[in-house]
Amino acid sequence: MPFFEDELADIARLTDAALSRLIPGGEGPEAQVLDAMRYSSLAGGKRLRPFLVIATADLFNVSRTSSERVAAAIEMVHTYSLVHDDLPSMDDDDLRRGRPTCHMKYDEATAILAGDGLLTLAFEVIAGAETHGLGEIRAELALELARAIGAQGMVGGQMLDLLAAEHALDVPEITRLQRMKTGALISFSCQAGAILGKAGEHQRHMLAAYAHDLGLAFQIVDDLLDLEGDAEEMGKRTGKDDQAGKATFVSLLGAERAREQANILTAQAIKHLEVFAEKGKLLSDLAEFVIKRRK
Amino acid sequence: MPFFEDELADIARLTDAALSRLIPGGEGPEAQVLDAMRYSSLAGGKRLRPFLVIATADLFNVSRTSSERVAAAIEMVHTYSLVHDDLPSMDDDDLRRGRPTCHMKYDEATAILAGDGLLTLAFEVIAGAETHGLGEIRAELALELARAIGAQGMVGGQMLDLLAAEHALDVPEITRLQRMKTGALISFSCQAGAILGKAGEHQRHMLAAYAHDLGLAFQIVDDLLDLEGDAEEMGKRTGKDDQAGKATFVSLLGAERAREQANILTAQAIKHLEVFAEKGKLLSDLAEFVIKRRK
Repeated sequence: MPFFEDELADIARLTDAALSRLIPGGEGPEAQVLDAMRYSSLAGGKRLRPFLVIATADLFNVSRTSSERVAAAIEMVHTYSLVHDDLPSMDDDDLRRGRPTCHMKYDEATAILAGDGLLTLAFEVIAGAETHGLGEIRAELALELARAIGAQGMVGGQMLDLLAAEHALDVPEITRLQRMKTGALISFSCQAGAILGKAGEHQRHMLAAYAHDLGLAFQIVDDLLDLEGDAEEMGKRTGKDDQAGKATFVSLLGAERAREQANILTAQAIKHLEVFAEKGKLLSDLAEFVIKRRK
Repeated sequence: MPFFEDELADIARLTDAALSRLIPGGEGPEAQVLDAMRYSSLAGGKRLRPFLVIATADLFNVSRTSSERVAAAIEMVHTYSLVHDDLPSMDDDDLRRGRPTCHMKYDEATAILAGDGLLTLAFEVIAGAETHGLGEIRAELALELARAIGAQGMVGGQMLDLLAAEHALDVPEITRLQRMKTGALISFSCQAGAILGKAGEHQRHMLAAYAHDLGLAFQIVDDLLDLEGDAEEMGKRTGKDDQAGKATFVSLLGAERAREQANILTAQAIKHLEVFAEKGKLLSDLAEFVIKRRK
């Protein structure tokens, strides 16, 4: 898929440019928190969520000015979640995308504030007039983002994950944890494109189903790579779920059945795109990329 | 001011009821983060910011359904900032409003997530359709809230405060720190009432001037109480700025001049309310309460 990988790289570049523009530099000593926000946001990465926003918004011919802002905002949220999850009192990780994590580069207090600042800036960007001409749309984006990432979404998922070592989770419980911790923001990425594009009920439903299956397939592949992957290639510590004794799709199903499950989910995800015919190509290519990726 | 203190207590009760309604209980292990959010939010407190929102919105006959939601959202933001500021890597406080701080009651990870959850829920509440019939208003509230509390507002102020031990701040620098760390959210509280009430330019300007002076007076009184106050009465550790060698208005100006300055600011704040004639009474009573409070 050389064409697809070019598209992915293009959107990653656009996202980096938007992030760099939207996270201001600062003067005075408080600039340290802005530096930390930039350090963690501009560390590379596949920019999967921005890709989902932009590719979904493209289905409806939304202006790239709108979709790039929302894409950058969602990436800020993703980065905030990584910065806080990496903290010593949470997952205690030193390395992220091949570089020291935010609290290692700065300190814990700065990392907590950088996360807080990124989360807040995401809402500032989404609610800003440049994102869409209609306040109704901007408010809907802010509302649905908050629902996806709050205590009943992403934040609740991280709470569940932290407590998971104390409980022996089964497949339905792991599925629920993943839906909250990573699935909710992936789903919102597609939903955001649909909101910007004023998609109809049926189209929204199909995109939600696509995002649901894609998110789960993505997580299973992540678990497989965590087990099989090479720390150097991944740019982060691998095998940590296994070391922590945490149940994953792979530990519960075995690698072979997990891989099978990911394949089935990917095929399902692609099937949901039929309603968009040829226009759905980018999103279906993404699903294939997710299942084949090596990091 | 017995009448005023009844009003303040009434609004505190309304705020508690709104917070209790808006922060859901949860099922499953992730309910721990919702418990922590409720624990820290429903710990009493003067509810100064909710009072400002509601009293300002009342100037424009805004429905209480709207102003109470926004008031509760702002109190969630205030609580999130306290929960994160109290963390060991920040101000490292064990006691807040006479009870163990969130990370002492639960643990650090839960406290970080509870803060994240409260910040996120504040945006969910503000952007929700029940807050106002117009998306334009809801988006403006979300935008201005984010501006007030981000890296160039409250979060930046906390970064400045953490670094303040390393610099010898003078009065203009302390004023800037206070404007960012506590002033920005106090100002937004009045601004929110004005946005809900579709206040005119001149009215907004006067309310911003009122909030500016009130915020500074509030901080000076806080510094005086921190120095003179009794830990038991205050429900938190006192004298800590002094112990940390941090400059405050009081350490720089002396108690007498600081008190004088607070009186001048309060008189100025009240003067800005003249445009509202009799209707401004609640806000001017609040300014007098702030200067006379003992905790």
